[in-house]
Amino acid sequence: MIETIGFDADDTLWHNEILYLRAQEAFQELLVPYAPPGKALDELHRTELQNIPLYGYGIKGFALSMIETAIRLSDGRTTAAETARILDIAKEMLRAPVQLLDGVREVLAALAPDYELVMITKGDLLDQELKVARSGLGPFFRNIEVVPEKNPEIYLEILDRLRIPPQRFLMVGNSLRSDILPLVSLGAHAVHIPYDITWEHEAVELGTGQAAGYAELEQIGLLPGFVQELSMQLGGKDGS
Amino acid sequence: MIETIGFDADDTLWHNEILYLRAQEAFQELLVPYAPPGKALDELHRTELQNIPLYGYGIKGFALSMIETAIRLSDGRTTAAETARILDIAKEMLRAPVQLLDGVREVLAALAPDYELVMITKGDLLDQELKVARSGLGPFFRNIEVVPEKNPEIYLEILDRLRIPPQRFLMVGNSLRSDILPLVSLGAHAVHIPYDITWEHEAVELGTGQAAGYAELEQIGLLPGFVQELSMQLGGKDGS
Repeated sequence: MIETIGFDADDTLWHNEILYLRAQEAFQELLVPYAPPGKALDELHRTELQNIPLYGYGIKGFALSMIETAIRLSDGRTTAAETARILDIAKEMLRAPVQLLDGVREVLAALAPDYELVMITKGDLLDQELKVARSGLGPFFRNIEVVPEKNPEIYLEILDRLRIPPQRFLMVGNSLRSDILPLVSLGAHAVHIPYDITWEHEAVELGTGQAAGYAELEQIGLLPGFVQELSMQLGGKDGS
Repeated sequence: MIETIGFDADDTLWHNEILYLRAQEAFQELLVPYAPPGKALDELHRTELQNIPLYGYGIKGFALSMIETAIRLSDGRTTAAETARILDIAKEMLRAPVQLLDGVREVLAALAPDYELVMITKGDLLDQELKVARSGLGPFFRNIEVVPEKNPEIYLEILDRLRIPPQRFLMVGNSLRSDILPLVSLGAHAVHIPYDITWEHEAVELGTGQAAGYAELEQIGLLPGFVQELSMQLGGKDGS
């Protein structure tokens, strides 16, 4: 039986990628004097990847990587005004209102009476806490876990600490690499709900769905029905 | 009886402030063409305080505030090389080895057999997790809590979640504002161990010590003796 459902947050409960896409567009425009747009974006991604061990995930690290990339691409000619514009882009991202994906509130309201819900999200602690507060979704969740990285060890630590047996846990998220595969490897259940756009670094080659031990849904509105079916399968014919 | 001891980390278990002081010195030197050192530092503190609601605490936010301050103080004349130098200062901070305060390892080793230890630290999640890992102190702690802010509500949430009654909890830290006063207000015990240097924003006017409901120790090496005495007081004459 499923007792606890874990939710990724960024691009599973609320839009996030779109903020980065807009910021990247603004960044590319800003760098037009120094580099063609495609090149600026490639270089930015390269810088971000290099800096992940030091900066982790989140808007502040992204901002520092934009500034570093601008300096490199301009051969040291970036002006203070250009750097200031990058700071503004970052502050706009940090101040952006939280936009829930369609149906999220209804789905959580439908599941909360029957399942314990936990949020497991990667990123800057403050960023994520601010977004939880602004989203109004906090009360649906028993626990909100902000983690620096999503891998089997970290999921196992959370499940242990909350005393959740993996086989009674279902994780829901948009990233195969971060939300799905680590759980499959632990013997937990997982539902992949792809977001329209997924950041390069998150992309993983994989045969889809059931054969690989997880399910794929087109949108979160389908989740309550899926959970009910899964519970019936796991619970036997009586569905209890 | 005391059952659980909470430790602040930065400037209680390991040196941290010193990294910021060195960075501030480097920053002031860098800005000499634009502003006298004292003014550069004042402006930096002002920028940091303004940005705390967006950036929180931690090195990445500090770096972004340094860049912003440099642009403002130079009237938009900061060069890319100067901005690059600020990025380097931040990366040096993030890469800096963790230096434990004198006696920390021995004190934790002495307390760990008799008390549950938890670490409660404020700042960037990744920064703090990296420091825990580099410090080698992780195994002494039952739990490591990285929080975006330290106030009575957040401490109460942690104590509730870990099922620790406040009157059986002793918090140890260098900041009256963050580590001591919130716990006193909750009816928990607290030990203040001042660090040589405390950041302006942390300073709080207060009559000292016992009258205010907490104890003050000169250095962490005195903690095991203090805890033993406190336990005897709380446990009555037999000291059990």
